[in-house]
Amino acid sequence: MFNSFGNILRLTSFGESHGKGIGGVIDGFPAGITIDEEFIQNELDRRKPGQSRLTTARKESDKVEFLSGIFEGKTTGCPIGFIVWNTNQHSNDYNNLKEVFRPSHADFTYHNKYGVRDHRGGGRSSARETVSRVVAGSLAKLALKQLGIEITAYTSQVGPIKLDKSYSEYDFSEIEKNDVRCPDPQKAEEMDALIYKIKGEGNTIGGTVSCVVKGTPIGLGEPVFGKLHAALGNAMLSINAVKGFEYGQGFRNLEQTGKEQNDIFFENQGKIDFKSNNSGGIQGGISNGQDIYFRVAFKPVATILMEQETVTVEGKDTVLKARGRHDSCVLPRAVPIVEAMTALTILDFYLINKTTYL
Amino acid sequence: MFNSFGNILRLTSFGESHGKGIGGVIDGFPAGITIDEEFIQNELDRRKPGQSRLTTARKESDKVEFLSGIFEGKTTGCPIGFIVWNTNQHSNDYNNLKEVFRPSHADFTYHNKYGVRDHRGGGRSSARETVSRVVAGSLAKLALKQLGIEITAYTSQVGPIKLDKSYSEYDFSEIEKNDVRCPDPQKAEEMDALIYKIKGEGNTIGGTVSCVVKGTPIGLGEPVFGKLHAALGNAMLSINAVKGFEYGQGFRNLEQTGKEQNDIFFENQGKIDFKSNNSGGIQGGISNGQDIYFRVAFKPVATILMEQETVTVEGKDTVLKARGRHDSCVLPRAVPIVEAMTALTILDFYLINKTTYL
Amino acid sequence: MFNSFGNILRLTSFGESHGKGIGGVIDGFPAGITIDEEFIQNELDRRKPGQSRLTTARKESDKVEFLSGIFEGKTTGCPIGFIVWNTNQHSNDYNNLKEVFRPSHADFTYHNKYGVRDHRGGGRSSARETVSRVVAGSLAKLALKQLGIEITAYTSQVGPIKLDKSYSEYDFSEIEKNDVRCPDPQKAEEMDALIYKIKGEGNTIGGTVSCVVKGTPIGLGEPVFGKLHAALGNAMLSINAVKGFEYGQGFRNLEQTGKEQNDIFFENQGKIDFKSNNSGGIQGGISNGQDIYFRVAFKPVATILMEQETVTVEGKDTVLKARGRHDSCVLPRAVPIVEAMTALTILDFYLINKTTYL
Amino acid sequence: MFNSFGNILRLTSFGESHGKGIGGVIDGFPAGITIDEEFIQNELDRRKPGQSRLTTARKESDKVEFLSGIFEGKTTGCPIGFIVWNTNQHSNDYNNLKEVFRPSHADFTYHNKYGVRDHRGGGRSSARETVSRVVAGSLAKLALKQLGIEITAYTSQVGPIKLDKSYSEYDFSEIEKNDVRCPDPQKAEEMDALIYKIKGEGNTIGGTVSCVVKGTPIGLGEPVFGKLHAALGNAMLSINAVKGFEYGQGFRNLEQTGKEQNDIFFENQGKIDFKSNNSGGIQGGISNGQDIYFRVAFKPVATILMEQETVTVEGKDTVLKARGRHDSCVLPRAVPIVEAMTALTILDFYLINKTTYL
Repeated sequence: MFNSFGNILRLTSFGESHGKGIGGVIDGFPAGITIDEEFIQNELDRRKPGQSRLTTARKESDKVEFLSGIFEGKTTGCPIGFIVWNTNQHSNDYNNLKEVFRPSHADFTYHNKYGVRDHRGGGRSSARETVSRVVAGSLAKLALKQLGIEITAYTSQVGPIKLDKSYSEYDFSEIEKNDVRCPDPQKAEEMDALIYKIKGEGNTIGGTVSCVVKGTPIGLGEPVFGKLHAALGNAMLSINAVKGFEYGQGFRNLEQTGKEQNDIFFENQGKIDFKSNNSGGIQGGISNGQDIYFRVAFKPVATILMEQETVTVEGKDTVLKARGRHDSCVLPRAVPIVEAMTALTILDFYLINKTTYL
Repeated sequence: MFNSFGNILRLTSFGESHGKGIGGVIDGFPAGITIDEEFIQNELDRRKPGQSRLTTARKESDKVEFLSGIFEGKTTGCPIGFIVWNTNQHSNDYNNLKEVFRPSHADFTYHNKYGVRDHRGGGRSSARETVSRVVAGSLAKLALKQLGIEITAYTSQVGPIKLDKSYSEYDFSEIEKNDVRCPDPQKAEEMDALIYKIKGEGNTIGGTVSCVVKGTPIGLGEPVFGKLHAALGNAMLSINAVKGFEYGQGFRNLEQTGKEQNDIFFENQGKIDFKSNNSGGIQGGISNGQDIYFRVAFKPVATILMEQETVTVEGKDTVLKARGRHDSCVLPRAVPIVEAMTALTILDFYLINKTTYL
Repeated sequence: MFNSFGNILRLTSFGESHGKGIGGVIDGFPAGITIDEEFIQNELDRRKPGQSRLTTARKESDKVEFLSGIFEGKTTGCPIGFIVWNTNQHSNDYNNLKEVFRPSHADFTYHNKYGVRDHRGGGRSSARETVSRVVAGSLAKLALKQLGIEITAYTSQVGPIKLDKSYSEYDFSEIEKNDVRCPDPQKAEEMDALIYKIKGEGNTIGGTVSCVVKGTPIGLGEPVFGKLHAALGNAMLSINAVKGFEYGQGFRNLEQTGKEQNDIFFENQGKIDFKSNNSGGIQGGISNGQDIYFRVAFKPVATILMEQETVTVEGKDTVLKARGRHDSCVLPRAVPIVEAMTALTILDFYLINKTTYL
Repeated sequence: MFNSFGNILRLTSFGESHGKGIGGVIDGFPAGITIDEEFIQNELDRRKPGQSRLTTARKESDKVEFLSGIFEGKTTGCPIGFIVWNTNQHSNDYNNLKEVFRPSHADFTYHNKYGVRDHRGGGRSSARETVSRVVAGSLAKLALKQLGIEITAYTSQVGPIKLDKSYSEYDFSEIEKNDVRCPDPQKAEEMDALIYKIKGEGNTIGGTVSCVVKGTPIGLGEPVFGKLHAALGNAMLSINAVKGFEYGQGFRNLEQTGKEQNDIFFENQGKIDFKSNNSGGIQGGISNGQDIYFRVAFKPVATILMEQETVTVEGKDTVLKARGRHDSCVLPRAVPIVEAMTALTILDFYLINKTTYL
């Protein structure tokens, strides 16, 4: 049950980085939604490697082939099977990993849990699996667009370089104009320079992605074990290399008191409005109609192109130097993945909320 | 499906703060576990209000009544129904809330989602619901004890006062010696003084709880949508007032590179060992046998005993002053709740892991 | 996860026949439904023992106590906890069963599976558990009534005495006029006489219950693993003593060909209508708007008040004579249980169907 | 969530009869099981059309392509994606169905539920979907074989021709020797002649498949909503054209009393044994170690090659004559499908049962 994500809307994913491909089944997707293949491809292109000097030189064509659930350009309500074939594999790059555990990777835990593991490029634990999420998430975005719900993520920190203003002070149209996907052009340049430098060293660096959801109606989220922010947190923590999630004020400003943090209601032209949004658009686990915003921490990629001490499968000390083509910073490519998982979560809870009344 | 938590081991909870009681059903609990009622009561006492000058003066007896699933002192494998009756309710304290939305509470969202809400003390959205988790969690702890797995949480930040050392540098036997549940006696005093001062002002303050799990075997966690840390994050984010979750290095030290963060393996007396634990005991979503550690952010409680602007249910501006007995800082009482949700998660994944092989 | 039934609407049940009571949690129930306590009690009374000379002389008061989820007489959308306290237990009647396996009961399998079992009256395996289903089902019926959906079950066979006409030829208002709950007064008398005779012998007899659902809209049911009839079959087979389920023509008339069995469409006053209903109101797993009908087989109750050979827990031959108060035929009391499980299933799929479109 | 089957072991299926193919994802399959591709192909060949003069002349190659989850010939514990490409489609055979509802098919209900439907060969409602179950079931059989659990199904009735003896009186090695898959060679000939005659008329005929599971350990099945027979019933009722399920004595012998039907225990060479098996190997929802047996009713296929009255999508009367290649009796090809769904169910409950104890 653990290769599935979601409740009513459910993505079941399969595939390994160096197997035949990455695919999935999207179940519970609403009937009658028009498929915009160009949009889907564009989302895949935002995730794909080799986009810029910052990302890995691997060239993955990443074309999705839909296998079912679409008829004459529209979803039918039946499960949508799909696959993205793996085409640009250099499996031999990984031969030296067969007998070695890479530090801070999943090699050691998979080996111990399953007794067997596909050592080529991480197998199932590879971030290549996220291609299935971007496919499913792009379909969810198409549905959400009809509801006026818009999801935007961006790189908000790379190593020590952070955005320090609230999301509302940035111009989101800047995001796709730079390779880092950062709405602050100045910081974007600094981040770009840092990543390029780190890459040159064969090293890696982490950071944060921020995400904002606009247009969510009031009422999404299910107490007490289906809180919207808990579902978003779970979604984000399922992404490779993610180490933390916070929404609203999160870990920040904990020195402030309740009086300072409470979001005061007031009457605004005959409607109930809020004077602030410290809650992050969710109260009691349910969306309150304000913008939802959250932040996700990514560790530096574990694969570095430097010598590292480690052990063999038999537990003997050895030295490893990774080969292959790797990202030195996942943040730019993580942006569409964060958006995709957010879209799947929001659409799922939108559908669930339809069952609140008879 | 959203008042249930867990997969094989599943807690389904019910109840409101001012209804008859808070209860639940624990399904999938292993057969043959001896029930230690004193231990369970002690866990409830750690959560209950009125423990010290820091917590609310509400006196809740909080005795659990088991309704099924236990025979001659042992679990039978059948569902364990239980209830903690509500006995010390001052529902009239809340009469003034019927027509008003409290800022940063769930009043507004529940009212809009369900059309009806139990305004007395938050109803279902009240943190009183967590009593069901402490009951279920204490049973899970009894099972985990047999496996040598031990869970310890503690207050690691209150407002601006933080613990700055790694968990391993603290003496956990100090935790229960002070009202704040902080392992650093010096900081505990400072935190205590701050909370007492804030309480005197009718204000509230947030902070963080840290948690450590020792003795977890290698192999708990299920890729890719059942990663152990994602399940823990989901569990923590389901607790009232939680705004963030991080494990391992989380949001901290993001300026460090992969080279600095990677946990190097080495041979230690014939066994594979780690030179560090930046991963927080989980790699690729699966426990690696090291200590699991994570941190949870709690916002300041929304109920303050000061005048606040707000609106009525009809959307008119008004002024609210809360009455009733409220915590000015939830951290000390949140500690056993964090432990309980951790215990439920770890035991669930322990059971799931038994199905990896035929 | 196996003490829960349903998807969006989910009943989680707990309790043993000789424990404190039988209860449950109803999650996902629509908000805003008015609770009719008299109706619910009437449903419980239809299930309770001691109604007539045909049923066991056990007197169970069977009053439901709601514990949550209802506020000012209406459902709130929060989980509805409830309990029916056990009050009329003669646990000592079962002392002789502690060391003995009763033939065709669950004693042997529970003992082997769980290592421990509550031998008093079957414990968790007792049909007393069905009281929780009748409570939940009666709530579901209240909701379905608002949708114009009506569920009627009746005894259609006792031992060799069967109804041989189609359900549409009977007057359902006759059902509650006799103790057997059979719409054919003549057959009802014969069935009554047979059960009374069998009871006098200390023996038991089985039969069938038929059920008809009128007013179901087109579209309930989810291909391919959520077919409406499969969900109904699963629901019925979860009832104690049930051995078979068929819908539409089922096992009957298998000598007929496709030409004879197909339900022909025709235009009837501008609408699409059917010339027959061999399909039983469900096609491709989805309701087609016609009456849904199905039949359920119940074996004779295993507890007979006659001497039977059996073995002890240690595997030694022995002779058992049951004491206690037992039904000699469950059919009359099974009628409301069949209706309850049907109501839960139909309401669940009604809610699910709301998620078909955006 | 409704294109998935199972709990721990879960098949998610996708595909339509005239789309690109039928595929699925098998999640939760045990790690380390050797894949026997020849065995899997043989199972697919038992299901495929065109095997004999009795089945449809459609030639489907039905080769499975595994996409993930298998490494060096063994399962890895990761999800097993697979597809069987559709290669022999004559979609134009179905052009005349675009505007017409076929009687007793899913056309009318899909059209009304989803607003759109793939009219070519039934789309998602086609029995071609069962190819995914045979793939998954064949893997489950490979695992069960290691546990000594063996599943055998056979045709036990075609139209009026029935097997009337208990399963134990037949020689199962006869089953695959005739095209009908019936263990009684004499009856098989009669059934074969009947099907051939019915086929010549362009008509269809139904019947029953019986299934026996040998070697099941005591303890599979989870009270009260996870009873093994309810899970088997749900599995069978999910198969196209199935109208009924019974296990043990089922609908038969309802004239017998409890005294006659009870399965008496006795001591047999120091072990507990049973004098009969009227329970069908399951008591209280849990396997008791005896043979499990059940029977499944299939209606005559709805597609007949004769003129039938029906209506158009607009509700106007019309006459339909089906073209294309169709089975006149599904029983022979249903046998491996019944076995497959049984294997998936038994293996799932085997894995679940491992979590009964710590």
